Amino acid sequence: MRTVVIIGTGLLGSSFGLAVKRAGIFDWVVGVSSPAVVAKAIEIGAVDVAMTLEEALPTADLVLLAQPVKRILSLLERLDLHLRLGTLVTDVGSTKAEICAAASTFLTRSTFVGGHPMAGKEIRGPEGASAELFVDRPWVLTEPNEALISIVEAVGGKPVLLGPEEHDRMVAFSSHLPQLLSTALGSYLSDKQVTSVSGPGLRDMTRLALSSFDLWQDILETNSPNVDSAIAGLISELEGLRSALKSGTAGEYFERGASLSAGLRQGQ
Amino acid sequence: MRTVVIIGTGLLGSSFGLAVKRAGIFDWVVGVSSPAVVAKAIEIGAVDVAMTLEEALPTADLVLLAQPVKRILSLLERLDLHLRLGTLVTDVGSTKAEICAAASTFLTRSTFVGGHPMAGKEIRGPEGASAELFVDRPWVLTEPNEALISIVEAVGGKPVLLGPEEHDRMVAFSSHLPQLLSTALGSYLSDKQVTSVSGPGLRDMTRLALSSFDLWQDILETNSPNVDSAIAGLISELEGLRSALKSGTAGEYFERGASLSAGLRQGQ
Repeated sequence: MRTVVIIGTGLLGSSFGLAVKRAGIFDWVVGVSSPAVVAKAIEIGAVDVAMTLEEALPTADLVLLAQPVKRILSLLERLDLHLRLGTLVTDVGSTKAEICAAASTFLTRSTFVGGHPMAGKEIRGPEGASAELFVDRPWVLTEPNEALISIVEAVGGKPVLLGPEEHDRMVAFSSHLPQLLSTALGSYLSDKQVTSVSGPGLRDMTRLALSSFDLWQDILETNSPNVDSAIAGLISELEGLRSALKSGTAGEYFERGASLSAGLRQGQ
Repeated sequence: MRTVVIIGTGLLGSSFGLAVKRAGIFDWVVGVSSPAVVAKAIEIGAVDVAMTLEEALPTADLVLLAQPVKRILSLLERLDLHLRLGTLVTDVGSTKAEICAAASTFLTRSTFVGGHPMAGKEIRGPEGASAELFVDRPWVLTEPNEALISIVEAVGGKPVLLGPEEHDRMVAFSSHLPQLLSTALGSYLSDKQVTSVSGPGLRDMTRLALSSFDLWQDILETNSPNVDSAIAGLISELEGLRSALKSGTAGEYFERGASLSAGLRQGQ
């Protein structure tokens, strides 16, 4: 493939630009974004040239949609006419069911594969971009597309094949629930004056709470039944742990928790 | 002061040994611990000499009790007779109300000040020890003792004066609740097969879950009413967030959470 068009050159889009340029797998990296953001992406070497959406799309062999979920949803409604027949289109949106449904409705000339690299940072925008961002991180693909699997591997990611509904159910547990727990903990403690007696544990547990609702609103709204059920499940778990502390059986919770945590650290 | 006796030369005891030796504030660091643990503490240079409890206590100008809370409670019942009049005794136990009550019952010849350095690691034992462990970390003291404040400052800690009951109420929020949340999250996800779709957020949120119940049992049992009420409060917060997600007002939770988290990072 010759040309990749990255729509949205923020943290993920610019990191993808840096990573494909390092891997040397495209001749041209075209950026479509607001003037300041795409200028910064060019400055850091993530993008070769800025174009408007209408200019960029016909040049694309691969289109990467790297905007928030609802922006991707609205883009999908108006891409198709501008694309060459058979262009590969993917995205990095954090939820997949609504995006894949919209793509299957609106994209008739191109091949869409939903994507979700499990990578991120609190620093948004091209300022936080790194060619290393995807290295050794899972990158979910909703279809077994050979070309895209090669590209994900070339930027260091680990392709994971998962249908859109299954993806959304899983990330409610692995990503959305941890975010909401961190937010709830930070919110709960905000009037408790704990800062002078806190250690590294509380710091870790509230890092995600730095994330802004701007970023999360789309994600949570496009995955609400799964998110609601994950919170409900965690509340039950906490009620169970509370009872176990009273009956002296909390050790089982610590064992299960330690085992999951150790497993994550072994990359199992 | 000439001699510090450290009872329990695990992570905290050995780190204290390394830190006071670097600061040069004692002539002798005596370790009392099980043979293997004290041998390791000597090997890493945290302790000069190993003694039995009965040998060590009469030599002490300062005694540091660095064992789990219930071991400290039982030690307090039998220290007094062996100490010289006026010896300063402190501890690093994670809860303070029961320990300070026991000290005031059983220590009549010595001066007891409860202590709690807000520092730790998942690596237990002298193997994890570091002279840096206390640097810039809060170190709660239950009484305004000048000598002890100087020692805490000499090892890099930030003395925080807090009564034992107030301490226990605060750490239920700042330390015990984050631990239990991490454990509950890990336990809840242990049958959900999330490992292949997880990112750095879940890793952070489950780091504390690696801690063992061995270490936590004493802490949670000696602070159970505060811990129970902190869990109940967090459950209410999660129920509130769940409703807010449905009514479109979750942004407030994100703002409060981000503000607490940013405050912790500014050391406010």
